[in-house]
Amino acid sequence: MSPYPTISFLSDYGTVDEFVGVVHSVIRQISPSTGVVDVTHEIPAHDVRAGGLALARAAQYLAPGVVLAVVDPGVGTARRAIAVEVADGAAVFVGPDNGLLAPAVAMVGGATRAFELTNEAYQLGAPGPTFAGRDVFAPAAAHLCAGVPIDELGDEVDTNGLMPAMVPITRIEDDALIAEVLWTDRFGNLQLNVDPDEVGAWGDRIGLRFEGRSRTGTRHDTYAEIKTGEIGLVVDSYGLLSIAVDRSSAAEELGIGTGAEVQLVLLADDEAAVPPSVTTPVVLREKS
Amino acid sequence: MSPYPTISFLSDYGTVDEFVGVVHSVIRQISPSTGVVDVTHEIPAHDVRAGGLALARAAQYLAPGVVLAVVDPGVGTARRAIAVEVADGAAVFVGPDNGLLAPAVAMVGGATRAFELTNEAYQLGAPGPTFAGRDVFAPAAAHLCAGVPIDELGDEVDTNGLMPAMVPITRIEDDALIAEVLWTDRFGNLQLNVDPDEVGAWGDRIGLRFEGRSRTGTRHDTYAEIKTGEIGLVVDSYGLLSIAVDRSSAAEELGIGTGAEVQLVLLADDEAAVPPSVTTPVVLREKS
Amino acid sequence: MSPYPTISFLSDYGTVDEFVGVVHSVIRQISPSTGVVDVTHEIPAHDVRAGGLALARAAQYLAPGVVLAVVDPGVGTARRAIAVEVADGAAVFVGPDNGLLAPAVAMVGGATRAFELTNEAYQLGAPGPTFAGRDVFAPAAAHLCAGVPIDELGDEVDTNGLMPAMVPITRIEDDALIAEVLWTDRFGNLQLNVDPDEVGAWGDRIGLRFEGRSRTGTRHDTYAEIKTGEIGLVVDSYGLLSIAVDRSSAAEELGIGTGAEVQLVLLADDEAAVPPSVTTPVVLREKS
Repeated sequence: MSPYPTISFLSDYGTVDEFVGVVHSVIRQISPSTGVVDVTHEIPAHDVRAGGLALARAAQYLAPGVVLAVVDPGVGTARRAIAVEVADGAAVFVGPDNGLLAPAVAMVGGATRAFELTNEAYQLGAPGPTFAGRDVFAPAAAHLCAGVPIDELGDEVDTNGLMPAMVPITRIEDDALIAEVLWTDRFGNLQLNVDPDEVGAWGDRIGLRFEGRSRTGTRHDTYAEIKTGEIGLVVDSYGLLSIAVDRSSAAEELGIGTGAEVQLVLLADDEAAVPPSVTTPVVLREKS
Repeated sequence: MSPYPTISFLSDYGTVDEFVGVVHSVIRQISPSTGVVDVTHEIPAHDVRAGGLALARAAQYLAPGVVLAVVDPGVGTARRAIAVEVADGAAVFVGPDNGLLAPAVAMVGGATRAFELTNEAYQLGAPGPTFAGRDVFAPAAAHLCAGVPIDELGDEVDTNGLMPAMVPITRIEDDALIAEVLWTDRFGNLQLNVDPDEVGAWGDRIGLRFEGRSRTGTRHDTYAEIKTGEIGLVVDSYGLLSIAVDRSSAAEELGIGTGAEVQLVLLADDEAAVPPSVTTPVVLREKS
Repeated sequence: MSPYPTISFLSDYGTVDEFVGVVHSVIRQISPSTGVVDVTHEIPAHDVRAGGLALARAAQYLAPGVVLAVVDPGVGTARRAIAVEVADGAAVFVGPDNGLLAPAVAMVGGATRAFELTNEAYQLGAPGPTFAGRDVFAPAAAHLCAGVPIDELGDEVDTNGLMPAMVPITRIEDDALIAEVLWTDRFGNLQLNVDPDEVGAWGDRIGLRFEGRSRTGTRHDTYAEIKTGEIGLVVDSYGLLSIAVDRSSAAEELGIGTGAEVQLVLLADDEAAVPPSVTTPVVLREKS
């Protein structure tokens, strides 16, 4: 009996081509009883950071098992293919060692062991060298689910040598908290790398500066409380501060998107508020 | 043994973000043996009417079990989260009480009981209040499949108090039957809210007026019978009159889409035809 | 016990509408224990050739069972609905007889028997005649998985009379090998209908002519070896020559896409190379 009944699968493959279907097919033939949950395959092509953040947002909700993640601009180079064990084997993350897995691995407690996928007995042969998801990563994930011990997949590597994540942290500069849009969701909400505690004492209205423009954001508990014409600041469903407008797209309204810098400014007329001082590095909330 | 082996899942979440994958993951952990069928997640954001119509089109074909539907612009407001039992428990619809579920519920015979999802024992805690699909609706659907009785999910509510659907009906105005495009499908076919019986005696050619322009539609039994350059009128696979062109997009050809008004006009030169008189409200065909 | 535990499903339905979900639902009710793998549903609408090529690329990786493929511009015409048995019953392809299935059927060894889907006992009734995927093809695929013998589905037809595939082959013209872009993948790589052996002795640099322009392609073993600003020629993961640029889109860089003609020219300054002579028809590599 495998300890891993589920593979959660994220990639930048899109669904226009047959890549995702082929990976499912490969898994199904190696481990027919394993359920595969598609987390998303619409990570922008080659965007390791976006993939890592999406995986981290999803991590605490994923079913126990193997996480298969492929955003791999360095396929065919010296970047390693790895399997990272977390929580002493409670789950395994399989993917390229390029920082993609790191935020999610950290979310669930960090790596306990890691192995490079060097054992070709658990890979598919291929006419060309370029489809590692199909030929290397999916077979590794499926063999883990079929009962192959992780240390059969290849050589153990030092977990301290794994590529770390590159998640931007906020900083204070003059009167402003310099933040960044981590994610623009389907509805146009702009998630910032800001823990609500960082601006906990700033009052209900906070100045926003971006690309030479200024707006005022108003804090609300839910999106629906945001008034028409107002720019809302809401703690989103992942526990981070996000910019939103009611039933429309904040990204369109403000003309910014993922990666944009947003400066949060204490408003002068808000006497109860205290200025920015200490910056706390943002963390996506761990499961409590 | 649960009476509900399948969850059919429709939303406006898109697949660019990890929302759909997270909902699948939540379901899988509460009720691992339940199969989840994705109806579609590309309902336009916040478009309750489009979601309700898609669900109604699909309803008669869905596997017995729980239908989970989330198009929820009012999340976080006083709109209720509900579970609607149909056919004395043969199936349950779970979603927001905003009219989204109503057309499909009507299609399968109407609500027999309804409950507001107030019991937090069957919900997930969340860092923010905004992802009801993950935290409220999916857990309710999954617990139903895991054997929790519907009346455990919260307080019973009056089925007569549920938000009704807003499906446009046709009307006669002067010489025209005023119709509306209910749906533009992937192939550009324009489904009208017109039962073929409404124009049953109008002959093979029907005048079409829209946005100040006029065209003549010709009735055919299949899309393939439509001649090049011709505007076809075909009874579609849901039993409604639709405008189509051969192997191309009627929406592009006519420059109209979902929500557009289309006037159907009896052509003067068609002597065998009878003018419009009584309007029959359109119904998506129920399973016979 | 059915010999077919899996249905691999490809179509041009897209995922914006509920078509794919309805087909899954139909299958699930006829054969609840069958797993359905979505190969892709984003084949361009009505593009039989693109669908056939995608299916052929996927074919050798698909799980044993039934392949359900629907790209069907001729729905409602005299084109036949068919089930094609391969390898004496090891797998069955179900879809329209319009050339869609042919490349994949050839990849896995050719048809051993074929049947027209004429038996209405294994079809769904429909209010309109137009959704063959739901009413004809999906039920046939599901009944096969549920144990219905293929010869119950309808009349046997001559496998030699099935519509063949239309896959372009290369030709020599003056100094050039005239090729065509078979497929532009999600990452903008341009797959050519060129077996690497056709240009095996041409040296590392090959002239490329397309739409009146000229560039030089440089051969590499992996995408990552392609230098910035360089046009790479790489044997792709299906064994065909493809045009690529590093971490970006060759399709955008060159301004061409699927169906474009590309002339490969022996470069004059490459003395070790031999000119084009014999053309080998391209084959997608079969599983070895």
